[in-house]
Amino acid sequence: LRFASGEELQPWHLVYECYGKLNANRDNAILIHHALSADCHVASHTQNSNPGWWEEMVGPNKAIDTNHFYVICINNLGSCFGSISPISINPHNQKSYRADFPALTFSDILHSQQLLLQELGIRKLYAVIGSSLGGMLSLQWAIDYPDSVARLICIAACHKAYAVNIANRTIQREIIQLDPEWQGGYYEKNPIRGLQIARKLGHYTYRHPSLLNKKFADNPQHIRRYLAYNAHKFAEQYDANCYLYMLDAMDNFDVSNKLATENTAFERIKCDSLIISVNSDILFTPDQQLEIYKKLAAANKNAKFITHYSEYGHDSFLVDTDEFGKYIRNFL
Amino acid sequence: LRFASGEELQPWHLVYECYGKLNANRDNAILIHHALSADCHVASHTQNSNPGWWEEMVGPNKAIDTNHFYVICINNLGSCFGSISPISINPHNQKSYRADFPALTFSDILHSQQLLLQELGIRKLYAVIGSSLGGMLSLQWAIDYPDSVARLICIAACHKAYAVNIANRTIQREIIQLDPEWQGGYYEKNPIRGLQIARKLGHYTYRHPSLLNKKFADNPQHIRRYLAYNAHKFAEQYDANCYLYMLDAMDNFDVSNKLATENTAFERIKCDSLIISVNSDILFTPDQQLEIYKKLAAANKNAKFITHYSEYGHDSFLVDTDEFGKYIRNFL
Repeated sequence: LRFASGEELQPWHLVYECYGKLNANRDNAILIHHALSADCHVASHTQNSNPGWWEEMVGPNKAIDTNHFYVICINNLGSCFGSISPISINPHNQKSYRADFPALTFSDILHSQQLLLQELGIRKLYAVIGSSLGGMLSLQWAIDYPDSVARLICIAACHKAYAVNIANRTIQREIIQLDPEWQGGYYEKNPIRGLQIARKLGHYTYRHPSLLNKKFADNPQHIRRYLAYNAHKFAEQYDANCYLYMLDAMDNFDVSNKLATENTAFERIKCDSLIISVNSDILFTPDQQLEIYKKLAAANKNAKFITHYSEYGHDSFLVDTDEFGKYIRNFL
Repeated sequence: LRFASGEELQPWHLVYECYGKLNANRDNAILIHHALSADCHVASHTQNSNPGWWEEMVGPNKAIDTNHFYVICINNLGSCFGSISPISINPHNQKSYRADFPALTFSDILHSQQLLLQELGIRKLYAVIGSSLGGMLSLQWAIDYPDSVARLICIAACHKAYAVNIANRTIQREIIQLDPEWQGGYYEKNPIRGLQIARKLGHYTYRHPSLLNKKFADNPQHIRRYLAYNAHKFAEQYDANCYLYMLDAMDNFDVSNKLATENTAFERIKCDSLIISVNSDILFTPDQQLEIYKKLAAANKNAKFITHYSEYGHDSFLVDTDEFGKYIRNFL
């Protein structure tokens, strides 16, 4: 696998799950891009009955109906849930890659997925769908591979890294690197203290402040336990290097990276688009999605923009699945 | 000096600056409470010509007019700009107190200030004025010493610690404690790496995201330099223990602490109040100040509420000094 940086990875592998059946025309496939900390287990199935991260959304007769669609979710290249990543073994020294993993961009992630879809014989997707980091990937897919997708659903995402998001991720990165166990990325043991504190800062932006203040109105100091619980759970599963690679990829995200301008990027798109924004999202704020919509409209693309009203903030797409189900079903 | 915890500090001292002249009736004094990272140098004067942190607000013919008023600003007990604090020498072992400094509450800070005002022969203040942490102190003053103040101006503050603010401060505290140089608070050298990262997180909330995104629209990654510059400047001046003591005092702040209920606390107030909120403040959000106003109104107190519209966010009181000057001058 050749990265945008010129570096190569050999051998390489991706882990994915699929739901439903690919039809004879091979034109009913939907690719779902997962978010930063999720994996490819989007819903339960016969070989894994654990609920997936979008359990209410994907399945027979659900909004993304697996009676009709063949749904694929691929663990992102560089993420630590099965696909090749910094925790994978480097055949040159039989140790995990750690900080020697190639510098990662969203286009690298998508390139690996495109190769997998070719392998599966899927030349054109019925849709790509993603939320948050997944939404950035889906948008970039529609730009990098305009002929290979008919519909784009992009939720709570952006078309490039905004300064405030870079600020947040910079602080998270520096927290992990402050942990004495980090060892410049060549640790033997995941630096969980730093990773937990960094994750608390991430989590701090996933819910709207009013909701958290309401939830902990009787005893505001209990928010510490809530943060600690979530951070602990996260750091047990996620590898610090993988997390840092993902933060870097987000920091360097800009649809115009390989092109002359943002406008050129949006002009490449050939599919119909649905852009969804959450009014209470303080992480990827509604103006960021409105900006995507405006650029699509300016390029005369067929695009629809929905503002979802919810008190939940950024994570609404995981919580308000009834409403998101309706938006998605209607569009599909 | 006896702390609420029962601990005592002997000897002790406060550093303060004053402007204008105390009149014969000793009833023209205004006490200004400074915010977390500021000091008592609120404006320039003959002995210190450096501009103060509220230079545009305090002076002859300015909004807080020192031709009429005698203005006092006291460096908060526990802060590292001259008043007794964790960096002061403990006479018992000739080392600085560091983590042995008594647990600090806002009422301790105010108690020390009340003793100073007695010393100065000031029995009733014309007004107390504070913003952010200073606004919390001013509000608590009106509750702890209701007969000693005629007017309260409370800006961008709250009447108790809200969960989301505790979350932010918890993360900041844990970042500092993650720094190997912190040494459980008994460091010889200020743990500046942790302090800088913590401060970046503070700073991240002082400006509205839209403003920062606009400021760094051309090169969003430059926000890193901006954060680094501000954090560096801060960590050169501020002591980590002092910062942690202040975060703790804010986390434990609740006007009902020593009283049965919040209502009892607000009923004690005897002065007129002006509560000012900034629409774009994401740190101490407008609903927090509206809550103060509602509680004052419910207790039948004479109170006025202003929402200031600005793109600057929490720090507006330092930036939009023309408008804040008008609000303050009218009320005084």
